[in-house]
Amino acid sequence: MHFASEQRLDDGVLERTFTLGEIPGTLWTPPSATPVPLVLMAHNNGLPKSQPRLVARARYTAAAGYAVASIDAAGCGDRPRTAADTQARAALRRAVAAGEPADEVFEAVVGPLVERAVPDWRTTLDALLGLPEIGGPVGYSGWTAVGIHLAVTEPRIAAAGLFAGGYVPRAQRAEARQVTVPLLLLLQWDDEGNPRQRALDLFDAFGTREKTLHANLGGHTGTPWFELEDGTRFFDRHLK
Amino acid sequence: MHFASEQRLDDGVLERTFTLGEIPGTLWTPPSATPVPLVLMAHNNGLPKSQPRLVARARYTAAAGYAVASIDAAGCGDRPRTAADTQARAALRRAVAAGEPADEVFEAVVGPLVERAVPDWRTTLDALLGLPEIGGPVGYSGWTAVGIHLAVTEPRIAAAGLFAGGYVPRAQRAEARQVTVPLLLLLQWDDEGNPRQRALDLFDAFGTREKTLHANLGGHTGTPWFELEDGTRFFDRHLK
Repeated sequence: MHFASEQRLDDGVLERTFTLGEIPGTLWTPPSATPVPLVLMAHNNGLPKSQPRLVARARYTAAAGYAVASIDAAGCGDRPRTAADTQARAALRRAVAAGEPADEVFEAVVGPLVERAVPDWRTTLDALLGLPEIGGPVGYSGWTAVGIHLAVTEPRIAAAGLFAGGYVPRAQRAEARQVTVPLLLLLQWDDEGNPRQRALDLFDAFGTREKTLHANLGGHTGTPWFELEDGTRFFDRHLK
Repeated sequence: MHFASEQRLDDGVLERTFTLGEIPGTLWTPPSATPVPLVLMAHNNGLPKSQPRLVARARYTAAAGYAVASIDAAGCGDRPRTAADTQARAALRRAVAAGEPADEVFEAVVGPLVERAVPDWRTTLDALLGLPEIGGPVGYSGWTAVGIHLAVTEPRIAAAGLFAGGYVPRAQRAEARQVTVPLLLLLQWDDEGNPRQRALDLFDAFGTREKTLHANLGGHTGTPWFELEDGTRFFDRHLK
């Protein structure tokens, strides 16, 4: 793990970029005399780790006492794409522009992305837990499909806060019943591109006994600020 | 308004019983040098104000800095029932015991109860706002149907936290679109007697722009303790 740059934010949080083999990442850590719990934070559908809303969420969560890490996993963010990825994305754009049913093309884009992203997240987790400033336990926040696959394959994930605003491949919808960690699912009631009923069905499907749904009025990017607070309070209950 | 008894709780909250004409009530007030906001707290379907879960919720909310009041409104709790009420309740018990569709009998029991309860709540509100220790603004917590009718008819209600676990008469389902105050709707995902879809439809119907749904796994009485905290934090955003 190689740290490339760092800056100290006004609230004392240290923000560092790193590379881990081919994986670029950012790590935010709060000032703390003792090792802190860790939150892995990903954006739905592989959006870049530099996306301002993710950065704001990471900084807020770090200031609340968590080490927070985000990466561009294989095929995500600014990472190179395979020819198949590029073709699948072009097909998706055409389908959306034409107003055609997009499930199959979403499946072709997001399905492989999730499968390849999760190993990079596990590699990152191994490296992060080797740092003296990070203790555990480990939570996950954000991209629902990756969160499901990670929670099912990675026993170190102790709690997950998921945002329903992204396509969840059939494989992860099927895996949802195997998820047993405490969950908070965040839903925007009128999310333009993500059918509400599908999110409600997913919430119903999760196998965990301790799951909470927060739904707020509004579109995809309209999540109210207080859900940031609620998210860290959820992690406080399970990681501290 | 006549105070009949009082006790000081361990956390400094003063718990007083009162009567206001024929209306019996309980008022909880926190220690405070300045007037505090008020929360009116009612149990679904007219359960008594002495019910332990309501009392626990009221004491918690008062300790968080609110005056909290609960009454047995007309026909509710231990108040006398009309002959029609008694007949309607007997019909409801028969329908439930026989496993018959109970909507019409619920309508006959709860519909008149809501219509008659709301004037008593407004009378109580007038009296409470005359007390020097109570300022405002005013929130409402609990019984959904009464909350809807009160929010629509009483402009002093500034925010409402509603529990979906109770029958909402057709008149109040129709009124939901007129509710414009900030709302938090609390839903138990597997509430035995209250269809989930009906609660989701109600959430969808509310006319307010600032509405949040919290759903938790489990049956009618299984609401997790952290929803008490979330409830006062909701009021903190809108009443403080």
